[in-house]
Formats: sequence, structure tokens, C-alpha cells
Amino acid sequence: MAEIIARDARMASTILKTLTDEERSQALQAVHDELRAHKATILEANVIDMENAAKNNLPASLINRLDLSKGDKYDTMLQGVLDVAALEDPVGNVTLKTRLDDGLDLYRVTCPVGVLLIIFESRPEVIANITALAVKSGNAAILKGGKESLATFTAMAKVVSDTLVRTAVPGKAIQLIATRDDVSSLLNQDKFIDLVIPRGSNELVRNIKDNTKIPVLGHADGICSVYVDKDADVQKACKIAVDAKTNYPAGCNAAEQLLVHESLLDTQLPVIAEALITAGVTLHVTPIIKAHLPANEKIVDAVEGDFDKEFLSFDIAVDAMASAEDAMMHINVHSSKHTEAIITENEATANKFLKGIDSAGIYWNASTRFADGFRYGFGAEVGISTNKIHARGPVGLEGLVGYQYQLRGNGQVAADYIGAGGSRQFIHEKIDVRGMRL
Amino acid sequence: MAEIIARDARMASTILKTLTDEERSQALQAVHDELRAHKATILEANVIDMENAAKNNLPASLINRLDLSKGDKYDTMLQGVLDVAALEDPVGNVTLKTRLDDGLDLYRVTCPVGVLLIIFESRPEVIANITALAVKSGNAAILKGGKESLATFTAMAKVVSDTLVRTAVPGKAIQLIATRDDVSSLLNQDKFIDLVIPRGSNELVRNIKDNTKIPVLGHADGICSVYVDKDADVQKACKIAVDAKTNYPAGCNAAEQLLVHESLLDTQLPVIAEALITAGVTLHVTPIIKAHLPANEKIVDAVEGDFDKEFLSFDIAVDAMASAEDAMMHINVHSSKHTEAIITENEATANKFLKGIDSAGIYWNASTRFADGFRYGFGAEVGISTNKIHARGPVGLEGLVGYQYQLRGNGQVAADYIGAGGSRQFIHEKIDVRGMRL
Repeated sequence: MAEIIARDARMASTILKTLTDEERSQALQAVHDELRAHKATILEANVIDMENAAKNNLPASLINRLDLSKGDKYDTMLQGVLDVAALEDPVGNVTLKTRLDDGLDLYRVTCPVGVLLIIFESRPEVIANITALAVKSGNAAILKGGKESLATFTAMAKVVSDTLVRTAVPGKAIQLIATRDDVSSLLNQDKFIDLVIPRGSNELVRNIKDNTKIPVLGHADGICSVYVDKDADVQKACKIAVDAKTNYPAGCNAAEQLLVHESLLDTQLPVIAEALITAGVTLHVTPIIKAHLPANEKIVDAVEGDFDKEFLSFDIAVDAMASAEDAMMHINVHSSKHTEAIITENEATANKFLKGIDSAGIYWNASTRFADGFRYGFGAEVGISTNKIHARGPVGLEGLVGYQYQLRGNGQVAADYIGAGGSRQFIHEKIDVRGMRL
Repeated sequence: MAEIIARDARMASTILKTLTDEERSQALQAVHDELRAHKATILEANVIDMENAAKNNLPASLINRLDLSKGDKYDTMLQGVLDVAALEDPVGNVTLKTRLDDGLDLYRVTCPVGVLLIIFESRPEVIANITALAVKSGNAAILKGGKESLATFTAMAKVVSDTLVRTAVPGKAIQLIATRDDVSSLLNQDKFIDLVIPRGSNELVRNIKDNTKIPVLGHADGICSVYVDKDADVQKACKIAVDAKTNYPAGCNAAEQLLVHESLLDTQLPVIAEALITAGVTLHVTPIIKAHLPANEKIVDAVEGDFDKEFLSFDIAVDAMASAEDAMMHINVHSSKHTEAIITENEATANKFLKGIDSAGIYWNASTRFADGFRYGFGAEVGISTNKIHARGPVGLEGLVGYQYQLRGNGQVAADYIGAGGSRQFIHEKIDVRGMRL
């Protein structure tokens, strides 16, 4: 079953890859129109999910995420489909052209990744969002939702499927799997599925990463750090530490660690600590930090693992560092590769930190909370990746494309060229590709 | 032990990442000079490996690969280090700059991947090659060689290590692990190792891919196809099919499948089959193909699995296709994502094929044998990747870099901006980055 779904997706992707941007965008317009036309039906289904959730005593936050009728959520979802359709085509950009020989030209061209598996929990609006992102980028997608949103999912899936078959996009390009089956059989389809994108809790992401050989785009933990350098401005340090920790502690871009240069233990540390405590934060401190702070119920001893931990709450681990290099080493060993900030007025130190840190985002005198696709000015956010290869940090449509090499010849064979038995030389002339599309 | 090695590599990478191109290239010059100065010692060690190999009755091809004294192999290896040092710096290129607000600038900058684990079999010259590629691209590397080249490896490792400690590159940036320990403990260090690059047999690569959660850059199989379209030129078809199959059948870019449009079964098929048979190729054919060819001892029945197989010999699987779309579907389901060719004079068909195929390389009227870093005009080849994300096809230095986002501010916090509690608007002004470096 899972293999048939995945193989169908691969075949649909083969057609979808050949469509023009106009054809893909027209299909999204049609999906938008039909989702609008069927709003009443979909919201009726949504009520069923909400009632079941209440009956099963699911937490209020989850019921809140399920609720598609709340405020302008439905209209925002619809507008999101049109916004994605209007983005620049990410596919077909030529990024390299080399003339290997007269009449033998090599092109590197951006292309869809292929087949995506999107696994999400309760938010049903993800269906519209992911359908838009996948179709716009020319990727087939298999969507697997959580059982809490089954009724909404089924209703939306029907609209999307019924609509796509009337467009140039193959019906199987977006498959919505609304069964209660375990997701593990899909996670085994590494022959046909190219990328898994989990949308949900840390536990969901971690579980998926541990159970598939397919690359996963996303993040489990967001363990971000703020390092206050010896040349820091104390006001910036206070403002950024408080924002990074308290603006939205449940966010993956919230700070979980505060590292303070040891020359500041008697000067800036108490000021920053007071700012954090006033903002309601509990400090989990090492002995050297504790020795330099007045006793306070909001100051507790750090325990083993506190510097490898995502608190997701008004808690932060605090330690002293002997130098910026020490902070870099500490971060590169402990961080989850999300986003780290240095507070310093010393440009040389900042540049070293910006170069040496290993994470997707490195900030100089700015809060880690800016790590977000919309704040970065991307038109759409696929997710935030803590991977070291492919897309990193907040990921827009570019995370759903890769590249291929096209070689256009007129009958050339390797045996005619030096190195493979012949005597012809390669030209290897680089050709300007600015604005070139294929 | 493996964890210490991997953690040391991460710490060394933190320093290596901050070095200038000049510092990295100077270190490579020093490695080159010392490898040249110690040529006699290294070749003595190489003789020991060769003698052991002979004693253990290892195959002649393996002994051949071990032999570092053969022809100008040693000097070529030395020159390779200088060639890599002279390449353009792949690190520090700014590929995006967005002004988020006055004094708050976002940069996307190319950066090293981080820590590489290179696992190779018998060729000892890989040590020099990989050291050069890793240092040039700012990556720390752990090299694990095969036991056949232990003596050579140990001698070269000592020269490389003794040299690096006298340069700006930290000694632990290149760690050469010359033990007989199982590689599996290193493959478990996904916290500290970012990319595994196997250099060796298909079995080595497959075994590594099956036993690690770290991304692997490389290819196990190279199952390439040649599709002869209904509008093919028969001479081009013969020439390309013969070259793609016979120029070097053990190569990963050799063709393993010939797909022929069904309208050509009585016309071009017999001509192409004869050309292949004359070149010494055995055709493994489906019943429909068999029915259109005269009996010949070089024509045998295809068996289950022949279209998912890398023959690596003078053998090719042959089937008929009802259309170019059918060929695309067949290839996208069976191919190993390496390189596929279409032979056609029809530009529209070629363009559809070039867009629809899912592999790293797609060729129009050219032999699959061109899939090679040197033929593509890359200055260095890290390997050939059949992955769908990150680097694809023949991979140069660009496969060893990714990118990071740098945000340079002067104390900004998210809470001041709309969406996070404040009222400031983002500017999101795109800035021209041509030629910009950080």
C-alpha cells in the first residue's frame, strides 16, 4: 500500500516536473477557488473533529490549533495559496553553463526535489499551505495528517483531489492519506520518497528522524545561545537576552543558554541577571555564576544536561566563558545548529564568531528571535532546518528545489576525447547565465 | 574513542572555519612540500603493503591500486594538492543580502559543511587528495583507510600531521585513523560528523549508507539508461549506445539499459543491436525485443531484476517503450538517479525528457560517459552523488560547502517589530551581492 502510494507519487512527479509555472499556478488558483466554494462543508467537518477532541479531553491548545473557523484563519489560509502561486518560479533557473565543446553544452538547472512526504499533527490549514508549496515548486507530495483532524482532512482532501484532476497537475501529485495507519510504512519508501517534512512537535520530528533513511527537513530541538562578550554593551545584552528568552519561550528560536565572558561576572552579569529575573526568568547557573550573583529564588543550580536542553519555558542555563573562542567551542559542541548570537562592540571578535559558529544562523547584536522565514523576508516558510547540508535555517521555496545537470549535444561520445581513448580537447568555456532559464 | 575523535574534529573545525583562504592554501603548500620531501620513506612503507598484499593473494587489480610508485602516480598526487590549493575559495561568498531594517542586515554566506568522515579502501593517494579538498574548503576531516594500505597510510599520516601543526590549520583538523577498528563507531557520531564520503566499491558505499544516520555523499549503483526515441538519428543512437556501454563498462556512468521506442523495432533496433554485439556486448532482452531480432548467442532473455541492475560488464538490458513518457516513467522508477540520455532529433521531446527525468544528469544526444568532474570542467572531483538533495552528479568543492545566515545588527530585538508584539515594519530590501564576500 505505502509502496503503491509512493510509486504513484514518483510517476505523478514525472509529469508535474514538466509543467510550466503558469500551469502550476493555475492549478493553485483552482484549488483556492474550490476551497473557498466548499468553506461551509469543510467547516462542518471541522466541527466534528472539534467535538471529538473535546469528548477525548484533548488539551485546549490542541483544540485551538484544530479550529479552522477561528477568526480569519480560513481566509488567511486561502490567501496563502494565492501568495505562494504568485511567488517567483523556483524551477528552471540556470546557475551554470559550460561549453564543453562546440555543440556540447552543460547546464546546471534548478529542479524540484521530487517526492515529498509531509507529516503533520493537528493544524488542518497545513493541507492548503503544503499543497501550494509543493505544486508551486513542482514536487509531488504525500500528506499524512494526525487522527485528531481526520474529518477536516478528509473533507479538504476531497476538494483538493477533485480540483487537481481538472488541471494540468496529475491527481496523484498530491495524495492525502487520511488513514490511521502507522506512518512507518511510508517512512520506509526511500526508493520513491526524497524528502520528509514534519510539521509538529519536537517529539514528532525526533521520532521521524529516528525511523527513516530519507532526509528529513526540519528541526527537533532549537537550543539557541546568547554569548555576552567582554566588549559587550550592557544595555544591548539585557535587551537581547530578555527578548531572546521571553518574547516567545515556546519558539524554537528562543534562547536556552546565556554565556557570559568571565571578565563581566562582577559588572554586567548582575545587571543582565536582574533584567532576566524581572522578566520572570529562572536562571540555571553553574557554580562560578552563582558565586557572583546575590541569592534569589529565581537562581537555581544547573544540573547535568541543562546545556543540552530546550527548556521551552521561562528558564535559561547560564555559564561563564574564558573567551569568545571558548564560547564558540562550547556552542559548536552543545548547540542544535539553529541560531546563536554574540553581543559585542568589537568587530574583530564578532567576525570571528560569525565565521566560527557552526549553526544555521549567527547573529551579531540581534535577538535569536529574528530566525523566522517571514522576518527574513521569504514569501513562504517551509520550515526551519537544523541540518548541515541542503537548506538551512528558515527555509522558503528554495528548500524544495535542487539542481540537475543537462548536457545538450549532437551525438558526441566520450571515446573521442582525451582521457577516454580519443584526442579531442574539452573547451570548458564558462558562459554568463544571469537571468537564463530552461 | 570514536566520540573523542569526532569531538576533536568539531573543535578543530571551529578554528579552521575562521582561517583565511591564504592560511588554508599555505598549509596545503606545506603538506605538498613535506610529502615530496618524504617520498622515499612513504614509498618504502608502500612496498610493505604491496608485499603483504601479494602474500595474502589479493587480486592484481587491488595491488595495482595500492602501488604508489607506479609511473608518475606520486607526482600526480603531489600536483593535485597544489591544484586544489589554487582553486577559487569556495567559502565566504555572499549569495543573498536583505536589509531587514536600518542597521539590521541579513547575509547568506557560503561556509564549510563542518566535519567530514572519509572512508576509503586501497588507494593511498586519496589521503593527499582528501586532505587538500577538506582544508581548502575549511572542513575538518577524519580519514579511515582500509587495512591493505595500513603501512602507507601510517607513513603519510605522520607527514600530514607533523606538517599541519606547524601551520595555521589545527592538527586535529585532519585526523588519520589507521587502526583496524570497525568503522561503525565513527558512523554513530552523527552529533559531531556532518557528512560521510566513501571512496571505494559499491559494496563499501552500500554498507555505509545502511549503517549511519549521517548524510552520505556518493553513489552505490550507477544504473544509467539510453532511450532511443522515435525521432532518433540511427547513427547517433549506435555511436552513443556503444560508447555509453563499452567505453568503460566498470564506470558508474556506463549505460546498463537501452530503451527503444516501439516504432523502431523493425528499423533502428536491429542496427543498434548489431553495433552493440559487434562491440562485444551481450543484450538481455524482453520478449518484444527478442521477437524483432535475429537469433544470436549474444542475445539472451532478460530475467527478473535486470532493469534494476548495474552489470558493470559488457551486458545491457533492452526493452521497448511505447512513448518518451513511458521511458521517463520507466527510468524514474528504475534508475539510480545518476545519468540518463535521450537520442532524438525532436527538440520538444528532448526538452520534455530533460525536464521530466529525475536523475542528476540528463543528456540529449550525448553519451552518459561524460558524467565526470574533469569532463565537466570542475577543478577537483569529490565524488559522484546520486542523492536528491545537496550536491548531485559529479561534485567539486561546492559539495563540501553549505551556507549560513549572518544577521548583523546593533541591538535589535524581535519584540519591537510587528508580529512579535511591536509596531516596527521590516524593510526587506534586496541588495545586489555580485562579487560580495564576507
